[in-house]
Amino acid sequence: MSSSMTSRLLAELIGTFILVLGGCGTAIFAASAWVSEDFNAGVGFLGVALAFGLSVLVSAYAFGHISGGHFNPAVTLGALLAGRVEPRAVLPYCAAQILGGSLAALVIYALVTQQAGGYSISESGFALNGYGELSPFGYSMGAVLLAEFVLTFLFLLVILGSTDSRAPVGFAPIAIGLALTLIHLVSIPISNTSVNPARSLAVAWFSPEALGQVWVFLLAPLAGAALAGVLYPMIFPNTEEVILEREDDPAQ
Amino acid sequence: MSSSMTSRLLAELIGTFILVLGGCGTAIFAASAWVSEDFNAGVGFLGVALAFGLSVLVSAYAFGHISGGHFNPAVTLGALLAGRVEPRAVLPYCAAQILGGSLAALVIYALVTQQAGGYSISESGFALNGYGELSPFGYSMGAVLLAEFVLTFLFLLVILGSTDSRAPVGFAPIAIGLALTLIHLVSIPISNTSVNPARSLAVAWFSPEALGQVWVFLLAPLAGAALAGVLYPMIFPNTEEVILEREDDPAQ
Amino acid sequence: MSSSMTSRLLAELIGTFILVLGGCGTAIFAASAWVSEDFNAGVGFLGVALAFGLSVLVSAYAFGHISGGHFNPAVTLGALLAGRVEPRAVLPYCAAQILGGSLAALVIYALVTQQAGGYSISESGFALNGYGELSPFGYSMGAVLLAEFVLTFLFLLVILGSTDSRAPVGFAPIAIGLALTLIHLVSIPISNTSVNPARSLAVAWFSPEALGQVWVFLLAPLAGAALAGVLYPMIFPNTEEVILEREDDPAQ
Amino acid sequence: MSSSMTSRLLAELIGTFILVLGGCGTAIFAASAWVSEDFNAGVGFLGVALAFGLSVLVSAYAFGHISGGHFNPAVTLGALLAGRVEPRAVLPYCAAQILGGSLAALVIYALVTQQAGGYSISESGFALNGYGELSPFGYSMGAVLLAEFVLTFLFLLVILGSTDSRAPVGFAPIAIGLALTLIHLVSIPISNTSVNPARSLAVAWFSPEALGQVWVFLLAPLAGAALAGVLYPMIFPNTEEVILEREDDPAQ
Repeated sequence: MSSSMTSRLLAELIGTFILVLGGCGTAIFAASAWVSEDFNAGVGFLGVALAFGLSVLVSAYAFGHISGGHFNPAVTLGALLAGRVEPRAVLPYCAAQILGGSLAALVIYALVTQQAGGYSISESGFALNGYGELSPFGYSMGAVLLAEFVLTFLFLLVILGSTDSRAPVGFAPIAIGLALTLIHLVSIPISNTSVNPARSLAVAWFSPEALGQVWVFLLAPLAGAALAGVLYPMIFPNTEEVILEREDDPAQ
Repeated sequence: MSSSMTSRLLAELIGTFILVLGGCGTAIFAASAWVSEDFNAGVGFLGVALAFGLSVLVSAYAFGHISGGHFNPAVTLGALLAGRVEPRAVLPYCAAQILGGSLAALVIYALVTQQAGGYSISESGFALNGYGELSPFGYSMGAVLLAEFVLTFLFLLVILGSTDSRAPVGFAPIAIGLALTLIHLVSIPISNTSVNPARSLAVAWFSPEALGQVWVFLLAPLAGAALAGVLYPMIFPNTEEVILEREDDPAQ
Repeated sequence: MSSSMTSRLLAELIGTFILVLGGCGTAIFAASAWVSEDFNAGVGFLGVALAFGLSVLVSAYAFGHISGGHFNPAVTLGALLAGRVEPRAVLPYCAAQILGGSLAALVIYALVTQQAGGYSISESGFALNGYGELSPFGYSMGAVLLAEFVLTFLFLLVILGSTDSRAPVGFAPIAIGLALTLIHLVSIPISNTSVNPARSLAVAWFSPEALGQVWVFLLAPLAGAALAGVLYPMIFPNTEEVILEREDDPAQ
Repeated sequence: MSSSMTSRLLAELIGTFILVLGGCGTAIFAASAWVSEDFNAGVGFLGVALAFGLSVLVSAYAFGHISGGHFNPAVTLGALLAGRVEPRAVLPYCAAQILGGSLAALVIYALVTQQAGGYSISESGFALNGYGELSPFGYSMGAVLLAEFVLTFLFLLVILGSTDSRAPVGFAPIAIGLALTLIHLVSIPISNTSVNPARSLAVAWFSPEALGQVWVFLLAPLAGAALAGVLYPMIFPNTEEVILEREDDPAQ
């Protein structure tokens, strides 16, 4: 990455903007859209899971060569601990991610209040993350902490593994994006799925209740990511010297 | 691209034909297909979003090496401003795209009127783009302008980024196609999603109301694309010399 | 392709077996599966469209390097006319495809009659292709002929384009498989989608009515494929010299 | 693969953990999630089929370069018979897979019992594999044995084919993951789909009835995989000399 820090921060800002506009936007505009008695157009949890995953897949191909394609403070933390990003970039990256995500939530809010029937955040949820009353199926705080911790831990292992120098080159955005889809398929019913503090914060500004619970979605993802960042180089050490020629088929 | 202009224009015509037949066709034939009381076969907004995205993914792999794979006047305009296509190709490209899309709409019309129960454009929508009464959920003109502008702006950033010489080679059609899927997931409820003047025009010929609103779907996508075409080279300047050997893992 | 003709025919047989078991099997077992009052588990037309596309994507990666990965007499005919397969392979390929598909239909029949509630081909459709009464939404014979002709024509253009020596290497199975998904998204409501004589014949043996209409699904796909096979080299001539290094195009 | 056996076993354990948490987790948490009268959020069999496939796609890209990416005792057996893995690794691999899957089932159980309405394994199914009463649509033992045998046989052919030295490099995880999605699309209604003894065992510990039937999901997948492992090298012999240097990276 020879790009300037300005380019890198803009890439992180735009990528996280796309993640929140794409993922939360789909949840807010399209998840439950029932058009008429016999036309259930709504994309459901499956559509939302795809939207989050595709937003990362797409942005990682478009901007990954500029910034590394984190779009998520937990990913930046894990990358730091695994030695994949320099320390001085961490705080600016996180700020750009939070700013980009929050701007996208503003755009969503400006749009959704323009639909014919009006819009109420408290009734419709605004893609908020939460436990108890704010969990789609009333999961407890403990369950939400456990799910977010375990899933972010696995997410970072997948990120670090698929961008390992031993993995097939060029495919990491597919693996990482679809991992995020998989994570949403499992856990939207539990916590509405975060694994990303920037995504949680972006919409929490609009709801005092969600803002009161947002610490869960800072703590659990960051802890899971940190553990993975420390463990990955220990459990999967790269014992080969720098590979001058990739002879092995990594998928075999 | 060493192909002749005739080959290139045919590629744009066929690709846009596939985009409208695939995307609008799925919306018209299959989105709300409820077969029996307990068999909701309809593919909903999710199926339509996938259809638009796959049509571009597929055509870009099949014809991108001939014409660059625009299939969209907004993309051609953005590519022009970013220096990715020569000026003299712009108007012929747009004409081929509009012709290809319009021919596909004719084929759809010829087919859909042959179903057992008959077909009414005013009742069924014919995949028209619009605001107010023509928006699936009654979004205002302002919301539709904003959504189409922002989403086309982001679409062009993704196109320019994923086809950048620094991005992984060969994957751009996946990124671009799935970006179009993501855009539809977010915005079908708002405007039925255009981000493509050729797609809007193709079906608007069949509806005076839609034709009266079609300026929105020329103006907003073209403006969003133009902004991205100007900004991309400024915010993500390619400071590396021509890369003789790609040593960097772009997904990292 | 240095594989023996025996290997190539087995690859075509197994791939077409997977196509019919995967695509028609999903339609028969899973499309309308409603488990309980509030659990609509059925995968609908979207699931069927994905199943057909994934079956070709998967088999083309697994066996394309052996046989070229046709799995469809119309594809073999188009490939012949475009100079991509030798004439003496055409009839054996078609026989292997029809045999493989028909064996898969036998396995489906053996399985589906073992479900708790029994199974009736005339009531449930058995993934048959047809027009009029046999079309999911009662489309006329003319509409079905037109749809199958146009869609197979486009399918072959995508196949010939994505396996062209100028296209990105290795991605053709993704483009071709997802093109088949797109084709099903558009046309399951019209004809239950064939674009493949072997797929139509495989299930038509089980229904006299479908067998009486099967000529439509031989004629239209073969005609569409033939036209594409003749036109592709004319409209997209390869003006570059033959590339000596890319001899093994595994997807072709 | 120059990784140590410890790294390889951890990769198999983590990958199978992801497979069961992702696939069975989606089935248990999200398949039938109906949020309100007009919001069917449930992801259905289609979402579950995608979840199983994506879990393998993702883990194969992330950990395949460490362990080969089996995550399934049947795959390990087939790989052994096809000469793709050394005999001394087989039992440790299977133990790691069963342990990883079972740990994931524990995490799912810890989570699902924390939802607001409580959870009952006997009522909700817990993603168990089975025949008769335990089959989603009451399929007989014979049908389940046949389906699991045939589908695992085909799964292994796809795995061995897409990782063959003649296939495009780097794409195998896409082919293999989406093959698993296809297999689930076809057969969830029949057996809830196993083709993987570790996945069946992982959840069967929680149900005496399922544990009593689990032999079916050891026997049929292992037999199908063994047959494929023996047949593949016979029907698709690699007549080319060993390719010492693959210079054309097809993804490039």
